[in-house]
Amino acid sequence: MRAVRVHQYREDPHLDDVDEPTVVGPWDVIVEVGAAGLCRTDLHVIEGQWDHIQHPSLPYILGHENAGWVREVGSAVSNVSAGDTVIMHPLVTCGLCLACREGQDSHCGNATFPGLNVDGGMAEFMRTNARSVVKLDSSLQPADIAALADAGLTAYHAVRKAVQQLPPGSHAVVIGSGGLGHIGIQSLKALTAATVTVVDRSPDALELAVSLGADHTVNASSDGNGDAGRLLDITDGGAHVVFDFVGEHGTESLGVTALRNRGSYYSIGYGGAVNIDTIEIISREINVVGNLVGTYTDLVELMTLTAQGKVTLHTRKYDLEDAVQAMHDLDSGALVGRGILVPHLNK
Amino acid sequence: MRAVRVHQYREDPHLDDVDEPTVVGPWDVIVEVGAAGLCRTDLHVIEGQWDHIQHPSLPYILGHENAGWVREVGSAVSNVSAGDTVIMHPLVTCGLCLACREGQDSHCGNATFPGLNVDGGMAEFMRTNARSVVKLDSSLQPADIAALADAGLTAYHAVRKAVQQLPPGSHAVVIGSGGLGHIGIQSLKALTAATVTVVDRSPDALELAVSLGADHTVNASSDGNGDAGRLLDITDGGAHVVFDFVGEHGTESLGVTALRNRGSYYSIGYGGAVNIDTIEIISREINVVGNLVGTYTDLVELMTLTAQGKVTLHTRKYDLEDAVQAMHDLDSGALVGRGILVPHLNK
Amino acid sequence: MRAVRVHQYREDPHLDDVDEPTVVGPWDVIVEVGAAGLCRTDLHVIEGQWDHIQHPSLPYILGHENAGWVREVGSAVSNVSAGDTVIMHPLVTCGLCLACREGQDSHCGNATFPGLNVDGGMAEFMRTNARSVVKLDSSLQPADIAALADAGLTAYHAVRKAVQQLPPGSHAVVIGSGGLGHIGIQSLKALTAATVTVVDRSPDALELAVSLGADHTVNASSDGNGDAGRLLDITDGGAHVVFDFVGEHGTESLGVTALRNRGSYYSIGYGGAVNIDTIEIISREINVVGNLVGTYTDLVELMTLTAQGKVTLHTRKYDLEDAVQAMHDLDSGALVGRGILVPHLNK
Amino acid sequence: MRAVRVHQYREDPHLDDVDEPTVVGPWDVIVEVGAAGLCRTDLHVIEGQWDHIQHPSLPYILGHENAGWVREVGSAVSNVSAGDTVIMHPLVTCGLCLACREGQDSHCGNATFPGLNVDGGMAEFMRTNARSVVKLDSSLQPADIAALADAGLTAYHAVRKAVQQLPPGSHAVVIGSGGLGHIGIQSLKALTAATVTVVDRSPDALELAVSLGADHTVNASSDGNGDAGRLLDITDGGAHVVFDFVGEHGTESLGVTALRNRGSYYSIGYGGAVNIDTIEIISREINVVGNLVGTYTDLVELMTLTAQGKVTLHTRKYDLEDAVQAMHDLDSGALVGRGILVPHLNK
Repeated sequence: MRAVRVHQYREDPHLDDVDEPTVVGPWDVIVEVGAAGLCRTDLHVIEGQWDHIQHPSLPYILGHENAGWVREVGSAVSNVSAGDTVIMHPLVTCGLCLACREGQDSHCGNATFPGLNVDGGMAEFMRTNARSVVKLDSSLQPADIAALADAGLTAYHAVRKAVQQLPPGSHAVVIGSGGLGHIGIQSLKALTAATVTVVDRSPDALELAVSLGADHTVNASSDGNGDAGRLLDITDGGAHVVFDFVGEHGTESLGVTALRNRGSYYSIGYGGAVNIDTIEIISREINVVGNLVGTYTDLVELMTLTAQGKVTLHTRKYDLEDAVQAMHDLDSGALVGRGILVPHLNK
Repeated sequence: MRAVRVHQYREDPHLDDVDEPTVVGPWDVIVEVGAAGLCRTDLHVIEGQWDHIQHPSLPYILGHENAGWVREVGSAVSNVSAGDTVIMHPLVTCGLCLACREGQDSHCGNATFPGLNVDGGMAEFMRTNARSVVKLDSSLQPADIAALADAGLTAYHAVRKAVQQLPPGSHAVVIGSGGLGHIGIQSLKALTAATVTVVDRSPDALELAVSLGADHTVNASSDGNGDAGRLLDITDGGAHVVFDFVGEHGTESLGVTALRNRGSYYSIGYGGAVNIDTIEIISREINVVGNLVGTYTDLVELMTLTAQGKVTLHTRKYDLEDAVQAMHDLDSGALVGRGILVPHLNK
Repeated sequence: MRAVRVHQYREDPHLDDVDEPTVVGPWDVIVEVGAAGLCRTDLHVIEGQWDHIQHPSLPYILGHENAGWVREVGSAVSNVSAGDTVIMHPLVTCGLCLACREGQDSHCGNATFPGLNVDGGMAEFMRTNARSVVKLDSSLQPADIAALADAGLTAYHAVRKAVQQLPPGSHAVVIGSGGLGHIGIQSLKALTAATVTVVDRSPDALELAVSLGADHTVNASSDGNGDAGRLLDITDGGAHVVFDFVGEHGTESLGVTALRNRGSYYSIGYGGAVNIDTIEIISREINVVGNLVGTYTDLVELMTLTAQGKVTLHTRKYDLEDAVQAMHDLDSGALVGRGILVPHLNK
Repeated sequence: MRAVRVHQYREDPHLDDVDEPTVVGPWDVIVEVGAAGLCRTDLHVIEGQWDHIQHPSLPYILGHENAGWVREVGSAVSNVSAGDTVIMHPLVTCGLCLACREGQDSHCGNATFPGLNVDGGMAEFMRTNARSVVKLDSSLQPADIAALADAGLTAYHAVRKAVQQLPPGSHAVVIGSGGLGHIGIQSLKALTAATVTVVDRSPDALELAVSLGADHTVNASSDGNGDAGRLLDITDGGAHVVFDFVGEHGTESLGVTALRNRGSYYSIGYGGAVNIDTIEIISREINVVGNLVGTYTDLVELMTLTAQGKVTLHTRKYDLEDAVQAMHDLDSGALVGRGILVPHLNK
């Protein structure tokens, strides 16, 4: 089958012919890939940034946001069967460790992460397991929802955790209305009655935010001056929750400054650092809350919102054969919306 | 009456003769002070560190940890009457703002803070209001419990918030077994079945910790090398909650490093700064939780634990006349245990 | 002033000329009544059903859902001043008992309940206190929102407590789409993404429910046969939460039957009884949750939703002089929507 | 192997020679039984009371509280290996349904229940699966802990759910200090600082309760008169939480009456019915909370408390050959403490 593999860091991946994966263990599930999302993390993988964290053996297949149709299942698999439409939770978990037993899939002690440390979904077929697959209505198209598997799930997870802090009259601030942020805005609108203020440097991104229900927008200045003051004005003294989907280039301090007393800064995007004096943390009694992907039930809930039309993705499709071109487009800024790789799109 | 007042920052306070406070508003309560705790914050006040935050008008009376007996009440006061033994919540709150309506006394928008921005309890009498006083059993002695009003309350509040994260089998790490920390350890033992590991540089403090029920201790090295490793070993991979009662000189990074995935660093002591890369926050899904004093109901609960003998304070009493000497002792390290100022102790 | 007073149970109330209320205590607030909601509870009061619970001294003024404009305030009142538009929490609370300190206004140990045990709002003026009033935007009209003070608040409170049990994909069942239920439906739509199924015997009520966003409706049969089965079908095996706004005539057992495992039956309406075998409670691990009015912050949040247009009331106005006629209309079923008494409406 | 099987309801079970179980599926685990708890539920099974709920095929092996040593594991089992000491969660779950994904093991849609609907542990060997086994320290003896697998787990689960409602100063009432209740008391002492009052008809049971830390006891009267009044006195107006480990013969109404406003009645024992007027539910805002067995993580936590010496069981051992005699002793009241069946005890 055709597959997009990393052979060497800091080089373009290759489109290779490789063997199709097969069922090895009793819980294995082989999926015919319908779509694989393309994500900035793929570029970071190619740059080698994840090597010391995930240690994959090169070459291996990229693709960590995957959806498709079940082709074959192992002897112990009872929740899906051949032909089912599925989306895959990004982690392939064990179901036996304490984190799994509590439903904390992202913290499974024995997980693999297809596309990050084993073969992923930028291919015609991929191997996952029974715990990773969410069965979908057959009317759903993989290409329309694949990017929810990781980016969407991460945004939803953060919003889901914050619901109790966001009653009517509360203020949520969303920093970054891109691939994750625009799902976060829709999730906030679906799950809470909070007033939502969105910060971004791109007028297009802010326009998208408004179309998705944002109540206020702030066009971030290039030097950051005045942004915090505008947020404090709009939120009548500070946000109850700030969702930082950027996490670098100053959004960390902007987000913390924009909190009201007892507010929480949700850290989602990464690259920078949070730096706060302890006197500020305690005198304002504020919190910093980390967020990592989402649970399996988060993904099920997000699929429900999608089926109900409350969350939608803006995407641009590429044939799997054009994966490298799509990556170049993403890197150069020429790709608007979320890139989706589809096998045999052009046929 | 006699009172200890700050006249000028960076100078010793004076022992003055001043007018006794009187009932002004309908909610006022005049308390005959039985004891006022002495705290490092008093030294910081004298150094002027709190001036830009609390802006008191000099001269004013110190003392923010107070207990005594009700002397006189305003026309609208129904919860205490003359002669009642009381401890005072550190904040004198309005009862009308949204924070008060939710029971979040520390965030009252209209509060005064006796000893910090208005006259406090290092005097024979002080003025507070009906919302500040917790009525106690008449058998309790103000000198035995006054220091719970602020230091104890702050430690208890943090532990109380963390209870759900500390089921059997979980690990709590306490950094600093001093005035706050030793209340924190007792609170942990009373409210949870977590395993408690205490870090301090003082062998005496660690001995106290063990006598209060600490399961493990770590004698912190002068350079911090190896401390994190020892904590990760003892906690079998990291603490579920770290309570940092120091909050400076490197305990901030030690505390964050000692967390396990999904763990929370509770910031209580102050002076330093928390600095964490966002990639670390999200990949470990860890949290930083601010803590400010405690609520009125926290104080009621802490008084219950005290009456039940589950929490006790180690103190050293001084006559109010010797307040300045007590402060010098505290500053020089000559004061072991919590200093308590008692009017007419020597009579 | 003119006031509607109960003189004798089981007799029509009288329209009397009485003295205007005056400020007595420092926390008192005198309000010029803009509107008083009329409620089935008023009929029950007249029947004497509440006498043994509330023991009012006859004669006294009815009216427990009130809004208007502040006329005069006591010496200690700082949160409102003359001219402010206000809605009144139904209970006049002390702010000092433990329930008040935790924000549990409905459980204040020292509360009065205007309209139930002291003079209420079916008059030109009424006395309340500073803790009861919620200041509103001056654009809001008392007649449009008065009935939210009790009926709306009760419905909102129940929904608010259930939010965490109602994630996307969950099922809420609302029994009764009347005065409380139609606010409950709107609150569910504003606060959750749950699928909402409404049960009522009145086609008009169900039509209203659909117009407010109900996803499914069940026209309850006169004998109750088959209703549970239809609910179990629609909810794919049972509701996560059932809100019973009726609470008599069999809705209690219907509601419990319609739960799925781990579901919760929210008891709001009253008159009947809940009767469940303990084997059923434990084998299904289901819950029964009581609900009583709401907190002050619940009322603030509900007013926010109202100002945002997310919750609206359908009402019919009567002049205060026509109060007895309005009660007859309510009793006979001739009153569609919520009755609102307005002083000087006809002038 | 030797096994105790039910052949016909309302007849003594037989001690049979049957084939040893073998690994069939990849997740199977074969355990050499070290001990099987004997429980009143076993008597109810023999009476046929569970037939219409669990529909086992007769004959089958009893025993639903089991511990022992792993003998053999299926190809997919990675969490235990031959020789490990284990206790078994009572349900053998799938790990794939939504209930399992949330950690709600008791509500698995595909579970078997050894001893209730498939072969249990009153035998020399039994079959379970990888998700059911909790690996224990090899120093623990199966006979000392087997009865915690179900009875202990159920009591612990209820207490664990109630922790947030039981801060210092709160009151817990435990009805029934028997097999479940005495674990409940120890769990309350380990997890909370609540004041614990125990109700039972047996002076011996109350003496046991006091030795385990109960603060107050009430020797229930034969007619129930006055019991509620005594509880309301001791709890200063009612319990925050009542744990009813009996659930029949009037404890249901006693428990509900003994609640304070906003209190919760935890239903654990069964046989009777809860019957409450809706006006009482709402005017007191009280709750009824169902409890079913416990989760896998509950069992892990309970094993931790046991290893720490905070929870202990009082037991009487019988050889497996004497199972029928043990059942007769239990039925007649001659068995004090928890009966434990041990294969080859007499050898």
